[in-house]
Amino acid sequence: MFRTVTCGELRLADVSKSVTLAGWVQRIRKMGGLTFIDLRDRYGITQLALNGDKLSLADGIGREYVLQVSGVVIERQSKNMQLPTGEIEIDVQELKILNPAMTPPFTIEDETDGGDDLRMKYRYLDLRRPIVRKNLELRHKMAFEVRRYLDEQGFLEVETPVLVNSTPEGARDFIVPSRMNPGTFYALPQSPQTLKQLLMVSGFDRYFQIVKCFRDEDLRADRQPEFTQIDCEMSFVEQEDILNMFEGMSRHLFKAILNIDLPKLPRMTWADAMKYYGSDKPDTRFGMRFVELQDIFHAAEAQKAEEDKFSVFNHAAYIGGICATGCAGYTRKQLDQLTEFVRRPQVGAKGMVYARVESDGSVKSSVDKFYSPEVLAHVAQAMEAQPGDLLLILSGEDAMKTRKQLSELRLEMGRQLGLRDPKKFSCLWVVDFPMYEWSDEENRLMAMHHPFTSPKPEDIPLLDTDPAAVRANAYDMVINGVEVGGGSIRIHDAKLQEKIFEILGFTPEQAQTKFGFLMNAFKYGAPPHGGLAYGLDRFVSLFAGLDSIRDCIAFPKNNQGKDVMLGAPGVVDQIQLDELMIDVREPEKK
Amino acid sequence: MFRTVTCGELRLADVSKSVTLAGWVQRIRKMGGLTFIDLRDRYGITQLALNGDKLSLADGIGREYVLQVSGVVIERQSKNMQLPTGEIEIDVQELKILNPAMTPPFTIEDETDGGDDLRMKYRYLDLRRPIVRKNLELRHKMAFEVRRYLDEQGFLEVETPVLVNSTPEGARDFIVPSRMNPGTFYALPQSPQTLKQLLMVSGFDRYFQIVKCFRDEDLRADRQPEFTQIDCEMSFVEQEDILNMFEGMSRHLFKAILNIDLPKLPRMTWADAMKYYGSDKPDTRFGMRFVELQDIFHAAEAQKAEEDKFSVFNHAAYIGGICATGCAGYTRKQLDQLTEFVRRPQVGAKGMVYARVESDGSVKSSVDKFYSPEVLAHVAQAMEAQPGDLLLILSGEDAMKTRKQLSELRLEMGRQLGLRDPKKFSCLWVVDFPMYEWSDEENRLMAMHHPFTSPKPEDIPLLDTDPAAVRANAYDMVINGVEVGGGSIRIHDAKLQEKIFEILGFTPEQAQTKFGFLMNAFKYGAPPHGGLAYGLDRFVSLFAGLDSIRDCIAFPKNNQGKDVMLGAPGVVDQIQLDELMIDVREPEKK
Repeated sequence: MFRTVTCGELRLADVSKSVTLAGWVQRIRKMGGLTFIDLRDRYGITQLALNGDKLSLADGIGREYVLQVSGVVIERQSKNMQLPTGEIEIDVQELKILNPAMTPPFTIEDETDGGDDLRMKYRYLDLRRPIVRKNLELRHKMAFEVRRYLDEQGFLEVETPVLVNSTPEGARDFIVPSRMNPGTFYALPQSPQTLKQLLMVSGFDRYFQIVKCFRDEDLRADRQPEFTQIDCEMSFVEQEDILNMFEGMSRHLFKAILNIDLPKLPRMTWADAMKYYGSDKPDTRFGMRFVELQDIFHAAEAQKAEEDKFSVFNHAAYIGGICATGCAGYTRKQLDQLTEFVRRPQVGAKGMVYARVESDGSVKSSVDKFYSPEVLAHVAQAMEAQPGDLLLILSGEDAMKTRKQLSELRLEMGRQLGLRDPKKFSCLWVVDFPMYEWSDEENRLMAMHHPFTSPKPEDIPLLDTDPAAVRANAYDMVINGVEVGGGSIRIHDAKLQEKIFEILGFTPEQAQTKFGFLMNAFKYGAPPHGGLAYGLDRFVSLFAGLDSIRDCIAFPKNNQGKDVMLGAPGVVDQIQLDELMIDVREPEKK
Repeated sequence: MFRTVTCGELRLADVSKSVTLAGWVQRIRKMGGLTFIDLRDRYGITQLALNGDKLSLADGIGREYVLQVSGVVIERQSKNMQLPTGEIEIDVQELKILNPAMTPPFTIEDETDGGDDLRMKYRYLDLRRPIVRKNLELRHKMAFEVRRYLDEQGFLEVETPVLVNSTPEGARDFIVPSRMNPGTFYALPQSPQTLKQLLMVSGFDRYFQIVKCFRDEDLRADRQPEFTQIDCEMSFVEQEDILNMFEGMSRHLFKAILNIDLPKLPRMTWADAMKYYGSDKPDTRFGMRFVELQDIFHAAEAQKAEEDKFSVFNHAAYIGGICATGCAGYTRKQLDQLTEFVRRPQVGAKGMVYARVESDGSVKSSVDKFYSPEVLAHVAQAMEAQPGDLLLILSGEDAMKTRKQLSELRLEMGRQLGLRDPKKFSCLWVVDFPMYEWSDEENRLMAMHHPFTSPKPEDIPLLDTDPAAVRANAYDMVINGVEVGGGSIRIHDAKLQEKIFEILGFTPEQAQTKFGFLMNAFKYGAPPHGGLAYGLDRFVSLFAGLDSIRDCIAFPKNNQGKDVMLGAPGVVDQIQLDELMIDVREPEKK
């Protein structure tokens, strides 16, 4: 061992001990007859002091040099109480350079001068920054506590293969040419969904796996081509059992990692989430719930004389508002910026109506010329607005689209008002998702979750009469507006499964071709089962208070799917392609 | 929840409780007015008893049907003490068929009538067999205990990417075409070797990961294209520290899983392992160490008259024997079979010499006409043979090859004599591996471990004079003749690394091209570091007493790299190839 202690453990009680440390040079300060070196390792920073004939030992040493030093622990003259080791320093007797270091291209500090691209290229240096390393320490702890909890609950972690077959539905697969079977390909799993259901058929009863999954999608800011799931499945359970089990897991994590006692998780139906938050993953750290105003405004329209009927809300199928407490003082500029915000293509609203509740209770709005003070007072009352509040109102032809726009506005207001504190957590279950959503692209109903999701038993009669109204035994765990996990009870009844395929527009032959493999397995005795999967990257980034999942991943890829440090993906030798019997097409000239 | 208890937990103390169970029908026995059903789940088997008006509930039920039953726990008339639940049964009140089942293609019993191919095709049914499920339960437990131990020792589990770049040395990579970067490929990692060394450069200090690795090799019996490593690395350590740390891990596993107190692991040099066992992974569950006999026989030759000098050992550079205790009674047929064994192409010896030590101490051998009784007595003495023992001797021009042949013979004798009990464990470290081995194919020295392995400091001078004699700070953990883990101290000194590359025949430019990426990282301050990796599949199969790793893998691939259950690898849609800009070559007509 090159050391007897780490750089994070010495305290005043250790004074006069002889110790050996090893680590990296964080900083050197030469002060006349005294040189101080901050030596850093994973565990902390310890100050080294050199003086007298030892001064020359520091000659030529620079930032990030790797040193081994021996000396005696002494009490510091000027203590640094910010640092756990700040009361002591090492009176250095021996110093050995284990390895020199070139000057790093950015500073190894929490607040670094390195941009994203540079940090990613030299990720191995970026990972030296305590702020980044702590995220990976957190990730380790969370994964370990997940395993501890699930092991205690009798779950078995079963590894499923990475080289599987390409699946007919879902996102795009990464594929892997097979050399031993030319012309055929493996696929990397988008999730172990099928395999975990097979494990239930096998009687594994309680399965989990922390597992890499892969999707070849065009990458948005917070997506990675490879990501990690906490994948779980249970047999002989109903939805209630799964919600309780994994609420327990979350409670364990919050307690073990953050020392937070998580209250009983509220449950919100998908319908309510859309109605009150315009989102299936509402950020419930703050209220500002939607109030629907179309009845009030349309009643007001009906009262008007024919010639006055033109108004902003004339054709609106949906009118909804939020009440921003205490924001009546928003300036015209601020309001214009909010209007700009909702008009951005990413949000897509045509405009925004606002109304201030004055200190005397009267309402001043951007639509005063269209509506009487009584109507606006009625609106303010419906929204439970108080003097000093600001009302923001969106309207549109399509209720769903308008709700989503209003949701963006709500989140923006929450941000502006500091209501989205990353250190505060609000968790809930969103339940009763619809079974289907309409796809304009495919011109058919699509499974919102996946085709094996079970409808709610009480909605099964609706499958024949109004399939779009059928609710699923599907659920998401939402924390701070982020979907950290989701799953469903699966169908284990062959006849019901056939009906679901029929509604999805598959002929029995198509269903057999696409899903025959799992359906055949089910014929040999499938238990009732269900499960869910958490996104570990998101879960960790939430706990770490990060905006992006990237900094809780050791070696992430950029938006082009590249690892710029490794230089991956790269060109391969022709001999590899020959062995695989594949050719790369020449790029077309444009 | 579909049950109040599992099928494994009811005991005599539970008599008269009302319970609900769910599981699979293992067996049905109809005995006049009484029907017994064995209900099975992951936790055990519980006997159900139906009689009177409940008898008809069992109508139409067959093997592997999924049932939910409610009833009262009663004491059994005829107890089955082989079964933990064998003192009770359930007096069934209600029975519900949760799912019917087709008759499985083989019996779901520990001793099944299903062949390998059928079992793999219906692996989800094979996994219902308790004997297979127990292997995966063991795997879960071992992985969990590995994590518990390493977590307690301050190791961080860091996930490294699966989509990396193709590496220049080592086995063949699986590659993954990139759609976003046409013409380029990711590779699946053969191991996270480079990345874990980068994590040491990052200061992670103690890293581990239980991680899937991939090699596109032609598969031998006990290889899988994807396999799982327990991958570990430490900084600021010497070989001794690593051996102690991971000896501790093995000790923890043996105690926690098998309740075995592992003694301090012996260490054997690679040279001794080759000399005494003819193998770098000696099975030390039994002795039968090699005794070298060339001195005795060659001295005897030298004594002979010129005309008698023809003998079996005339030109042998190496003559070695093993002593099979108490085997003097081996018949001529048995000895002929042993000769056949060593002559098999897989072993490759030309012949075998044997000698029996008779009860009077005299030696009768297959070479009596070439050597005097005194010479043979001398041999028996050198081999410490006692009356009743059988001596088996091989010779050859090439000492290394002959040792390997003798090793095969030794293992075969160990097998015949029942000395290789899978329930008995003998663990050791093999240390001081050579740095290099000569490659006839490449006509150069090759790194035996990998090019970053550190030579033993005391052997560094030999790099200039006799590189083939240089020993490495490399080590393997061997259990029962299986290499379960191995690793090395890495080079962290840039100058030494350059010299090693030179000896391996790389120009500085080639070294830069092949390994520049890691060498550059090392310029920013690499700590002394080293590590090792265990093969989890092999480790588990050893603990389970399995001959093959396949049965401790949930969904293994066959020797053609196929998952016959999933039908992977398979043909993909043309649209996928178009998006990836690759083409599959037409197979050549022959």
